Amino acid sequence: MAERLAIVGGDAAGMSAASAARRREPTLDVVAFERGPYTSFSACGIPFFLGGLFEDSDRLVSRSPDEHRERGIEVHTRTTVTAVDLDRRVLTVRDQTGDERIEGFDQVVVATGAEAVAPDVPGADATEPARTIEAAERFRTALQRGGETAVVIGGGYIGLEMAEALVERGLRVTLVERAGQVMATLDEDMAAHVQDAAEGVGIDVRLGAELQEVSEDAVSVDGEALPADHVVMATGVRPATAIARDAGLELGESGALRVDDHQRCPGHDGVFAAGDCVESWHRVLERPMNVQLGTHANKQGRIAGANATGADFAFPGVIGTAASKICRYEVARTGITEREAADAGIEVRAATIKDRTRAGYYPGNGPIWVKLVVAPDGRLLGGQIVGTEGAAKRIDVLATCIWTGMAVDELELLDLSYAPPYSGVYDPLLVAARAATKVL
Amino acid sequence: MAERLAIVGGDAAGMSAASAARRREPTLDVVAFERGPYTSFSACGIPFFLGGLFEDSDRLVSRSPDEHRERGIEVHTRTTVTAVDLDRRVLTVRDQTGDERIEGFDQVVVATGAEAVAPDVPGADATEPARTIEAAERFRTALQRGGETAVVIGGGYIGLEMAEALVERGLRVTLVERAGQVMATLDEDMAAHVQDAAEGVGIDVRLGAELQEVSEDAVSVDGEALPADHVVMATGVRPATAIARDAGLELGESGALRVDDHQRCPGHDGVFAAGDCVESWHRVLERPMNVQLGTHANKQGRIAGANATGADFAFPGVIGTAASKICRYEVARTGITEREAADAGIEVRAATIKDRTRAGYYPGNGPIWVKLVVAPDGRLLGGQIVGTEGAAKRIDVLATCIWTGMAVDELELLDLSYAPPYSGVYDPLLVAARAATKVL
Repeated sequence: MAERLAIVGGDAAGMSAASAARRREPTLDVVAFERGPYTSFSACGIPFFLGGLFEDSDRLVSRSPDEHRERGIEVHTRTTVTAVDLDRRVLTVRDQTGDERIEGFDQVVVATGAEAVAPDVPGADATEPARTIEAAERFRTALQRGGETAVVIGGGYIGLEMAEALVERGLRVTLVERAGQVMATLDEDMAAHVQDAAEGVGIDVRLGAELQEVSEDAVSVDGEALPADHVVMATGVRPATAIARDAGLELGESGALRVDDHQRCPGHDGVFAAGDCVESWHRVLERPMNVQLGTHANKQGRIAGANATGADFAFPGVIGTAASKICRYEVARTGITEREAADAGIEVRAATIKDRTRAGYYPGNGPIWVKLVVAPDGRLLGGQIVGTEGAAKRIDVLATCIWTGMAVDELELLDLSYAPPYSGVYDPLLVAARAATKVL
Repeated sequence: MAERLAIVGGDAAGMSAASAARRREPTLDVVAFERGPYTSFSACGIPFFLGGLFEDSDRLVSRSPDEHRERGIEVHTRTTVTAVDLDRRVLTVRDQTGDERIEGFDQVVVATGAEAVAPDVPGADATEPARTIEAAERFRTALQRGGETAVVIGGGYIGLEMAEALVERGLRVTLVERAGQVMATLDEDMAAHVQDAAEGVGIDVRLGAELQEVSEDAVSVDGEALPADHVVMATGVRPATAIARDAGLELGESGALRVDDHQRCPGHDGVFAAGDCVESWHRVLERPMNVQLGTHANKQGRIAGANATGADFAFPGVIGTAASKICRYEVARTGITEREAADAGIEVRAATIKDRTRAGYYPGNGPIWVKLVVAPDGRLLGGQIVGTEGAAKRIDVLATCIWTGMAVDELELLDLSYAPPYSGVYDPLLVAARAATKVL
């Protein structure tokens, strides 16, 4: 009988694992269990769907269950894995009728993803977070029914993207954030530009806001009842680890599943995990972190699936690169911020420059801010960018420099491209590197 | 008496040198001689000026003679250096009245730039290339006087940009190129997309075209007289080295001035050179090359000026990075192409992918082609990118990888940013790296 690889969770990490395993080992039985009706969908696209940038939610699905089946993967949707028995090598699964059954496996990839964390105030858990296509469709239907006001709870990039989407639908939107800034992934000075952009489209941003209650038509914050025909909860997620924990898999300090660099769960042969539910090695902080991003999920899933079929691939770790588009600004970060450095006891210097995204005479140029965080020896440890069109993807250059351990005095003379539609003769990154070199 | 630093040529390299020297050594006499009326101008912006993207040619000047003077630099415009006597430490200069005089110096920076090369056919040298602001203004005046047809001779990026500018002014434009492709800096397969874009806006592209004669109202090509109310000559430039050569400075094999990595002219104390007139070390080809780009001119000038005042800065070399915008496509390259590798006897593999610039469901996404050229051991040696908005500046990531000697299997797992407005979940560069890994 052929070996059987079971996949717990049919989104990015799980289906990347299934696909990679199947490609490498065409005789292997690969079976995936997914709680929802969809596989391999882009949660990142949901705010754009809700904002009306496109109408058909199917476009968020990069590969449907049937497409996976055509590639020889057995896919069970609307099927929840309720238990994993690593000794007997069986899963307990429950289908949509409520029936439970047992499914055997030889190897397993745990890809259970993350789950939303509701704030601990009355009514907060009654709001469904729009984290799946079904939930997004329900929310769009509710929006189409009407309403004039919305409150978004949480000022991270998802909260901001959702707030922007609701503004685009014509709603009056208040965004409430407990911290003293939006975008906790940026330093406060850089986050201020993002807040400017949000306020520029009419979002009422409330910082340092204490959430007290969520009711059917209002959100109470700091003693004030904000009218809310619609409420969006974007207060973060945590790794979904209950089944894995019950199965005896080890959690790291971050609360996510511990894996080695081959996505193996330590101490359990043939057991792999990948994606939002695991820890990833942060190459700058030099410790494992739980980072929930589709990029990592896809790569880790592929590695887990390949290694489950005998490959020897290592995931090299992460450096915290992320990008988003918030109102008129593109926003990106990589490595560590000044605050993260302080929290980790890492001594750093920082330099921030303001420049333009194109040559001064070229139409469509706009502001770009670049902040570099560097070690005392000049090594680049972090970068943050906010600016108009063309700003965000520059972060990838900084990510590559951090990845390879480059110092800012080398970056300053790097042979980067120049043409008037893309920058002044010194790319903003080179200008920032020069400023950082001076600070040192 | 204070020491005196003379600068021969008042554009990017020369004035960067002057500024850097002056900043480091406020008591130094810094004197710059420039043939034309302007200093520090952007020749790269001329096609956009001619295309009507902006009206005021002064915007091409990043720092005027008076602005330099305010910073304590003595600037003589409309003043041509006709001879450099390195033993007596004097320049012979001729001002606009035709009077010659002698100017002494202690150190000198040669920054004489490049000069256009006209093809060797009758009438070709009667066409003034629009390489200076004055020439661009004369050409714009001629365009404003009327005309319906134009012929652009030369299919490099400047020829293509000029052809696009003329189309935007409503002219019928033919572009003639001797070679079998446009954009000789790209491999033929990638250049074909650029040709598509040019033809897409109505430019009549003639490849393998033998230029026979340029007359007042026509350009003869392959026995056909193409009507030409306007003619643009964009057949390349060569380093302007006559004065330096006469002064006894050494030329390299490329025909440009030989300098060491401190921009010093070997064998001559206190003599520096920088910019379009010098050779730069190509880090991939591992030989000196003459590369004419504002980025290098600025950096080399700054280094020459600093070193002339006792600093110890090295120019780390170039890797052939360049970007431009041609009609609907952004175009960029770095490192070496397949053809350059073949010419240099370097064994390489290549992989090309086609992807989208944004997530499939995100509006405004368009095609992007990425071609990677890799050594047999996987080291990235070159990259070429053609695509719609957001494509070109991705080249800087490949440039950074080449600069640091990264292999494509490492690039494949690099922590690059992802958000739906900027790419699918795998950035096109990661997709290309994967394809290249497979080819190996």
